[in-house]
Amino acid sequence: MDKERREILKRIEKLVDPYRITKGKGFRLKDFDPGDTGGFGSDQKPMARDLLEKGIQWLAEEQGKLYAQDRRSLLLLFQAMDAAGKDGTIGHVMSGVNPQGCQVFSFQQPSMEELDHDFLWRCLKRLPERGRIGIFNRSYYEEVLVVRVHPELLGRQKLPPGHVTKGIWKERLADIAGFERYLVRQGTTVLKFFLHISRKEQKRRFLQRLEQPEKNWKFSPADVGERRYWDDYMAAYEDAIRRTASREAPWYVVPADNKWYTRLVVASAIVEALWKLDLASPGIDAARGKEITAARRSLMREKR
Amino acid sequence: MDKERREILKRIEKLVDPYRITKGKGFRLKDFDPGDTGGFGSDQKPMARDLLEKGIQWLAEEQGKLYAQDRRSLLLLFQAMDAAGKDGTIGHVMSGVNPQGCQVFSFQQPSMEELDHDFLWRCLKRLPERGRIGIFNRSYYEEVLVVRVHPELLGRQKLPPGHVTKGIWKERLADIAGFERYLVRQGTTVLKFFLHISRKEQKRRFLQRLEQPEKNWKFSPADVGERRYWDDYMAAYEDAIRRTASREAPWYVVPADNKWYTRLVVASAIVEALWKLDLASPGIDAARGKEITAARRSLMREKR
Repeated sequence: MDKERREILKRIEKLVDPYRITKGKGFRLKDFDPGDTGGFGSDQKPMARDLLEKGIQWLAEEQGKLYAQDRRSLLLLFQAMDAAGKDGTIGHVMSGVNPQGCQVFSFQQPSMEELDHDFLWRCLKRLPERGRIGIFNRSYYEEVLVVRVHPELLGRQKLPPGHVTKGIWKERLADIAGFERYLVRQGTTVLKFFLHISRKEQKRRFLQRLEQPEKNWKFSPADVGERRYWDDYMAAYEDAIRRTASREAPWYVVPADNKWYTRLVVASAIVEALWKLDLASPGIDAARGKEITAARRSLMREKR
Repeated sequence: MDKERREILKRIEKLVDPYRITKGKGFRLKDFDPGDTGGFGSDQKPMARDLLEKGIQWLAEEQGKLYAQDRRSLLLLFQAMDAAGKDGTIGHVMSGVNPQGCQVFSFQQPSMEELDHDFLWRCLKRLPERGRIGIFNRSYYEEVLVVRVHPELLGRQKLPPGHVTKGIWKERLADIAGFERYLVRQGTTVLKFFLHISRKEQKRRFLQRLEQPEKNWKFSPADVGERRYWDDYMAAYEDAIRRTASREAPWYVVPADNKWYTRLVVASAIVEALWKLDLASPGIDAARGKEITAARRSLMREKR
């Protein structure tokens, strides 16, 4: 990494650090402000946009190296309340990336086939291959979020009698943490994003969806009903982050009341993680070099 | 469970107990004799065969209940040196079982696609659905057995630099133990069988394969080469059993020098585990009872 890049990396770290949770102990969601813009005033918005543009370019570059090297993979996992901007952020941040090296999966309500398996199953099948970026729009964390807030959903999971214990959420979170540790050992970099929107901003965005006909399709009456459980959701998120944040698989609690800032933080966190992997440009070793020389010679020797 | 069955269960437990490892600490493979026949002399062989026949029937019965109940699943995992009788045992013991409720997967050398994922991936995809019995003929344990004995195989796994550490086997075994704990919590019963053959008996069976033309196809020269690594394999098995045996996911070290006895022990262990689940016969609750009465009435009322 050259000196200039090291300088930029330092600035990126400074931007991302406040939102990164690597140790769950003592984590409190209320210490995080959904409206935070990291000191960028609205007059600096154009500068932030420039930075985001750059970040998207760097991301594309690093993805190329990841793909050529074909050893590591990157798993980006997005969780949030409705209207926090998951889809928009994913679309925006990953816009420059070669789709051949990037797979997005959205996890909706589990199908009958999926319910017939353990809860990690449907996500595990879709883990990114080496050299690729996998994006989970929602994930196995739903099993300790929406299912925790609405425990009646456990009934659909057909667990054997006696398996729905008092400690079920603690157990599930321990199992998730264990599985993420395993993934990291296998060469997957795991980044988990919680887009943190305020209840008030969600209301504003819902109203917008209702008022603008072209946004109506995004609206479902059930979404409004879920607002009643806001505090339960926040408690479930807090506990999930507490029990699964680690140095190897950190959570990012990203302020989500301002879309431009959400995107800036997410792009920066991904660029930072990839730069720190210090992926070599697709190079060649001595043996491969000989092969290439021999192939070139053979082609040159051909008569026609 | 009625009194007669409880009596039989006691006898089965007595047969199986000496081979079940639920705590790895202090486990030593050399305490186990591959030639053990549990006190059955060769004059009692016909009696043992009768018992096996019964066991196969009971197994089929229990599988029917498992399938009807559709809540639990059973994972049977077989590991062994070559010629220890994995294929034969699986075929024999599961012969009475409805194939719709039972899936066997044989894991050979991983494909390119499989190597592109974490090492559990190819097995996880094939875990049994609720209500089903899944059989793994070899499994993710190969990753801490053959790969441990031939660490050069790690090269094919395309792990990123720095991920092949000194502690890799310990880590892999811890990850496996963690994953099995998770599976049990999700309602899967996990039984792991190590068919324990002696080096001498393997030689005898290899020679048989060479001498009998109809058994030639089973022979590969590489198998003989592997005999050089016998002690390394035994050390790898011992460590794997030590670090992954648990009350929830026990290992069975099954004497494998006598095929009839191997089959008896395996069938008994499976019957025991299923009986202890105490699966209800496919019954009906009150609501379902009403539905059935109503449906019957409606059919009776039809004019033609």
